[in-house]
Amino acid sequence: MEFKINSKVLEKLLSKIIPAVPTRTPMPILENFLFDIKNGSLTVCATDLEIALRSSLNVAADENIKMVIPARLLYDIIRSLDDTQITFETEPNSKIKLTTDNGVYNLSYSPSEDFPEIPDVSREKEVVFSGVDLKKAFDQTAFAMSKEDMRPAMTGTLLEFASDGLRFVATDGHRLVKFINKSIKTSVTEQYILPERAISVLVKQLSEGDVKLYLSKTHASFLIGDGEFITRLIGEKYPAYNSVIPLENENLLAVNKQQLQSTIKRMLLFSASSSKQVKFSISKSKLEVSAEDVDHGSDAKENVFCEYNGDSMDIGFNTSYVNDMLTHLNTEKITFKLHSPTKACIITPNEMDENEELMMLLMPVRLNN
Amino acid sequence: MEFKINSKVLEKLLSKIIPAVPTRTPMPILENFLFDIKNGSLTVCATDLEIALRSSLNVAADENIKMVIPARLLYDIIRSLDDTQITFETEPNSKIKLTTDNGVYNLSYSPSEDFPEIPDVSREKEVVFSGVDLKKAFDQTAFAMSKEDMRPAMTGTLLEFASDGLRFVATDGHRLVKFINKSIKTSVTEQYILPERAISVLVKQLSEGDVKLYLSKTHASFLIGDGEFITRLIGEKYPAYNSVIPLENENLLAVNKQQLQSTIKRMLLFSASSSKQVKFSISKSKLEVSAEDVDHGSDAKENVFCEYNGDSMDIGFNTSYVNDMLTHLNTEKITFKLHSPTKACIITPNEMDENEELMMLLMPVRLNN
Repeated sequence: MEFKINSKVLEKLLSKIIPAVPTRTPMPILENFLFDIKNGSLTVCATDLEIALRSSLNVAADENIKMVIPARLLYDIIRSLDDTQITFETEPNSKIKLTTDNGVYNLSYSPSEDFPEIPDVSREKEVVFSGVDLKKAFDQTAFAMSKEDMRPAMTGTLLEFASDGLRFVATDGHRLVKFINKSIKTSVTEQYILPERAISVLVKQLSEGDVKLYLSKTHASFLIGDGEFITRLIGEKYPAYNSVIPLENENLLAVNKQQLQSTIKRMLLFSASSSKQVKFSISKSKLEVSAEDVDHGSDAKENVFCEYNGDSMDIGFNTSYVNDMLTHLNTEKITFKLHSPTKACIITPNEMDENEELMMLLMPVRLNN
Repeated sequence: MEFKINSKVLEKLLSKIIPAVPTRTPMPILENFLFDIKNGSLTVCATDLEIALRSSLNVAADENIKMVIPARLLYDIIRSLDDTQITFETEPNSKIKLTTDNGVYNLSYSPSEDFPEIPDVSREKEVVFSGVDLKKAFDQTAFAMSKEDMRPAMTGTLLEFASDGLRFVATDGHRLVKFINKSIKTSVTEQYILPERAISVLVKQLSEGDVKLYLSKTHASFLIGDGEFITRLIGEKYPAYNSVIPLENENLLAVNKQQLQSTIKRMLLFSASSSKQVKFSISKSKLEVSAEDVDHGSDAKENVFCEYNGDSMDIGFNTSYVNDMLTHLNTEKITFKLHSPTKACIITPNEMDENEELMMLLMPVRLNN
């Protein structure tokens, strides 16, 4: 078998697939690319059994072959080459020979039988997104997923097709984020849970241009440009999150997001490592934010400009969680909707695109003093 | 005690000193800045017992005080503040209070008695450098220092005042680099060895502008701008490095540096992890570079354009060492001066500033085949 390919063209293809190659795995076969050369087309894929990436391009090969090639070695060689023509040739002894103007490189390849099958997701039901919109939805929600394996459903992000739009929901039990893309409305409610690794790889592949999404009970497939991203879904029931969202929090605290985050970043320095706590002391038109680190004998207190007309209260939050939420709110002004120091607080941006809705929920913590 | 200072001015001062604060130390006192406020001047210093940094600026304080303040906490607070005036006040209970327009921050400070004395280096003998020249000398040599503690002298870089110039020498027994700055010639030979940590911190402080160097038997002091960098010296005898440098290697191989390095970077991918070996097969006007990884059944071979008129030979090198040397040679063309496959090879740049001299020595390795 022999074919020729430009080094930069192949580098671009491999760079799309390499994110699915696991860095550590008990199954060495997964450290390879599957090269499938068939009827003038080269399809490269890689998988870690949870996610898979696949992409193709045309090559003029003289015969069909399927083989697995060490992924990192091949990728490192190809991207270290200047812009040049490479000839790929299989040799009798399970070697593949790469020849350029100045060099010859021999690698071992293995037969493809042991490489896991990449699941095919039925293309019956198609949902089309703009890549930018999809990326935005994940960027604003995925940070709130649980890192603990106790409840597997919460380690992923929920995609819920509903009558008000496509909802993206993530929660770890202490905080919850719900983002709605209202341009995709469906009459029948359906839920799919994407695992964390899928989202972290997927968002790096998304850019402008449309994405086509296909879903089965067990897998999701995203067609992005000339590549395909496939992931298994988490086969668990997502918690009934709507029941924890308070319907009416009457005390509204409006603040400048950037100013509050600047304060919170300093409070992180003073939040004791044990409690990680920040206190909001709120009264009419006044917000005082404070933190104390008893172990190190340090404390801090700042006044933040705000608009507030509700009941006076002292309410505590996990400082890192407040910081996380502020990081993912991209508007100038935001509103904290409060009821009491023991009830869930809702944070929303003051401006939003017409087609979108974003809500963050944060549970308060009991104050030390 | 009370004084006022601008946040950005203090941030700049602390950013110069923080590199001397150790990240891990069995002596918690070293995790602090020493603040010495005396007669209208604030001097901040930090040390890890090997190196120390010190810098001063004018402040209008109402009394003198010496205290130690948690370094990272203070530095993180100050750099998180916008451009603002800060009032520092000591409180009765070993607290220091920082007040800005919007915030109040309390930190604990400790008395200064336990903070180690920073050695004073006599200013009798002064050597003046340009910061850029000094940085260049260290950049081109320090990488060859030994990482092994067996022979402490070799874990540092030698500064040797000699009749032909100021020599910078580093070696780990497998390779050796000698850089000479000919603008500083002295009649009496003197040797000083700077430790690795000193050099890595020092080069980051060097920029344009002159540096004044003072030396004692045990310490070196560098005056850089309005700051001082002090380091202990390694109190061992440096090996007689001149005896290993071959006087005449008659076989000269001239190559384009960038082209060879591009080849070597690919050979790194094929150098077996056990031997890390690359083979240079040299004959008249021909250089073939090759590597083989028997464990993974891969190998590579490239032709590199060269000028060569000497004896034909196959010579082996540690691939990483060749790559290191090429990384630190900044000229278009370089020359390998060879004698035989078992004798030290000399590598030199083909062009050099009039006032400088650079020589790298690399021991070959025995070829596998």
